[in-house]
Amino acid sequence: MSSESLAKGAAPRPVSLTGDRPTGPLHIGHYVGSLLNRVEMQHTYQSFVLVADLQALTDHADQPQKVSDHILEVALDYLAVGIDPKLSTVVVQSGVPELSELTVYFLNLVTLAQLRQNPTVKAEIQQKGFGERVPAGFLVYPASQAADITAFGATVVPVGEDQLPMLEQTCEIVRKFNRLYAPDDPVLQEPAAVVPRVSRLPGLDGQQKMGKSLGNALFLKDSAEVLVQKVMGMYTDPQHLRASDPGRVQGNPVFAYLDAFDPDQSALEDLKAHYERGGLGDVTLKRRLIEVLESIFQPIRVRREELAQHPDEVRRILLEGTRRGREVAAQTLSKVRRAMQLERWHSPA
Amino acid sequence: MSSESLAKGAAPRPVSLTGDRPTGPLHIGHYVGSLLNRVEMQHTYQSFVLVADLQALTDHADQPQKVSDHILEVALDYLAVGIDPKLSTVVVQSGVPELSELTVYFLNLVTLAQLRQNPTVKAEIQQKGFGERVPAGFLVYPASQAADITAFGATVVPVGEDQLPMLEQTCEIVRKFNRLYAPDDPVLQEPAAVVPRVSRLPGLDGQQKMGKSLGNALFLKDSAEVLVQKVMGMYTDPQHLRASDPGRVQGNPVFAYLDAFDPDQSALEDLKAHYERGGLGDVTLKRRLIEVLESIFQPIRVRREELAQHPDEVRRILLEGTRRGREVAAQTLSKVRRAMQLERWHSPA
Repeated sequence: MSSESLAKGAAPRPVSLTGDRPTGPLHIGHYVGSLLNRVEMQHTYQSFVLVADLQALTDHADQPQKVSDHILEVALDYLAVGIDPKLSTVVVQSGVPELSELTVYFLNLVTLAQLRQNPTVKAEIQQKGFGERVPAGFLVYPASQAADITAFGATVVPVGEDQLPMLEQTCEIVRKFNRLYAPDDPVLQEPAAVVPRVSRLPGLDGQQKMGKSLGNALFLKDSAEVLVQKVMGMYTDPQHLRASDPGRVQGNPVFAYLDAFDPDQSALEDLKAHYERGGLGDVTLKRRLIEVLESIFQPIRVRREELAQHPDEVRRILLEGTRRGREVAAQTLSKVRRAMQLERWHSPA
Repeated sequence: MSSESLAKGAAPRPVSLTGDRPTGPLHIGHYVGSLLNRVEMQHTYQSFVLVADLQALTDHADQPQKVSDHILEVALDYLAVGIDPKLSTVVVQSGVPELSELTVYFLNLVTLAQLRQNPTVKAEIQQKGFGERVPAGFLVYPASQAADITAFGATVVPVGEDQLPMLEQTCEIVRKFNRLYAPDDPVLQEPAAVVPRVSRLPGLDGQQKMGKSLGNALFLKDSAEVLVQKVMGMYTDPQHLRASDPGRVQGNPVFAYLDAFDPDQSALEDLKAHYERGGLGDVTLKRRLIEVLESIFQPIRVRREELAQHPDEVRRILLEGTRRGREVAAQTLSKVRRAMQLERWHSPA
């Protein structure tokens, strides 16, 4: 609760936590999938937005420079889309060592079997082809995520469906912690998952997932030229060879993007019908998408380019957000240590 | 390097790290196996002695009170045997959160396979019957131990033979850290294992190992009465039924203890010969052992009882040692963060 809201006598706003791994710039899939939602949430929630550089290092340990550089990129993306440092607290994870401390305490409350059986972890280990050679830090990241959530006191965590088992593990850790160390007066709070009603955007190549590293993403930082080039190269309907041929709307990523972004949805219905009966060429269709995307992303790009001229200003915002986040985490850790009876022999008080 | 040694122009003393998990009071096996060695080492090494309460919690997560209580017990044992807070720095692990932070960084540098294949970890997981249900914190404790060693800059770590693979893992982590993050100017130092030439004491019951939790240990805190009772109940040679029978010296724990403690080793040789040819009763033999042990442990016990009257004084020593230890660890972590490029976006400097 901020002192401001206390002064006004307002009820404390519920706390939410979201975040991203700084392993690449954010793309329009992030925009519709989570960023827009955060920009909205910051008005009703006390919003912590975590630039999870430590989590990025769990499988990029050998690329510290890349991770460090992308902290700025991700922060620029945040600010450009409208995450407002006056409303949201943007925290760089490695600036809050209390998160690592809490992670270590939580590691005692989960077993190897529980970590390996977590469907989210299991899928990601498989996807990355790690097997038994998974870095220990990656294997245990549910404990680290539980630390992030509980240290900031988040009770609301917007996640994708695939992240639900991860959040369930956080709840299990919280219950176990409270049962063992604070049975009469729980120290930690169980978070609730909120799965935002957003569509997942396919990749430019029509693959189900748009991914930073899949080479099929349209980034917020892409220039107008790159945007045109990427849209013009998009996968459509491979059977749709001549404009006069009938084309498929279903599974056509150009229409998926128009569904997500076109403000004139009734005109879009006409376009779809036209495409299906034939006579609407891909180039015309893509020009419409470019127009739609430019109207949304041009102002974001401009703002991003302006901010990128002033990295010191961004750094100041991150420094201040990290300081505020650390303050909250330190308060939690102080309660945690007391509950675990850790301070008896070495606290100066 | 202390400012004192700088002032004197002396070369910095090499740094050693030793420690114990506070899960029970220390016994005479610890005394001959490590404590005596530490008392000697503190004159030539800059000695850090770690009360490893966080490590104790990795498999005692549900007994925080027990762990907390035994921090005092272990500290009393240390001080009673002659670990001198003016020469050694006694640090409570949980008072140095930098150790947890470094552990989290190190977790990215070891794989699940490497942890599971570590013979020390493997043997302990088997011994404790954990299997796949091993607490994650226990599984990863080689990373935590690597953090303890490197955070204090220890280059010498006295260990038992069984701990050698653990130390090898520390060296691997150090090499990987330096290669990835500080190739030109190594930040962390590889420790050397020193296996002290000490005999391992068998249990009172003749079992190979004396263990805190095996019910076969003679504790430093045991009263004179308990000592007499425990020695009188010791296993000897089960074939040695009458004093007149020849008895076995080999595998007889009473002789193992006399070997370790009797200051008059030539008289001991006579006793052994006498026992082997028959005519020396167990009671006479045990009386000799009681005399020998009392001469060593009576002054230790007296000092321990005195100290136990002043827990605030012990607390002050732990507080001061932990503060000094934390200062050293914080310096290491500052270098570590810089090498990992973690401070670029959120350090106030």
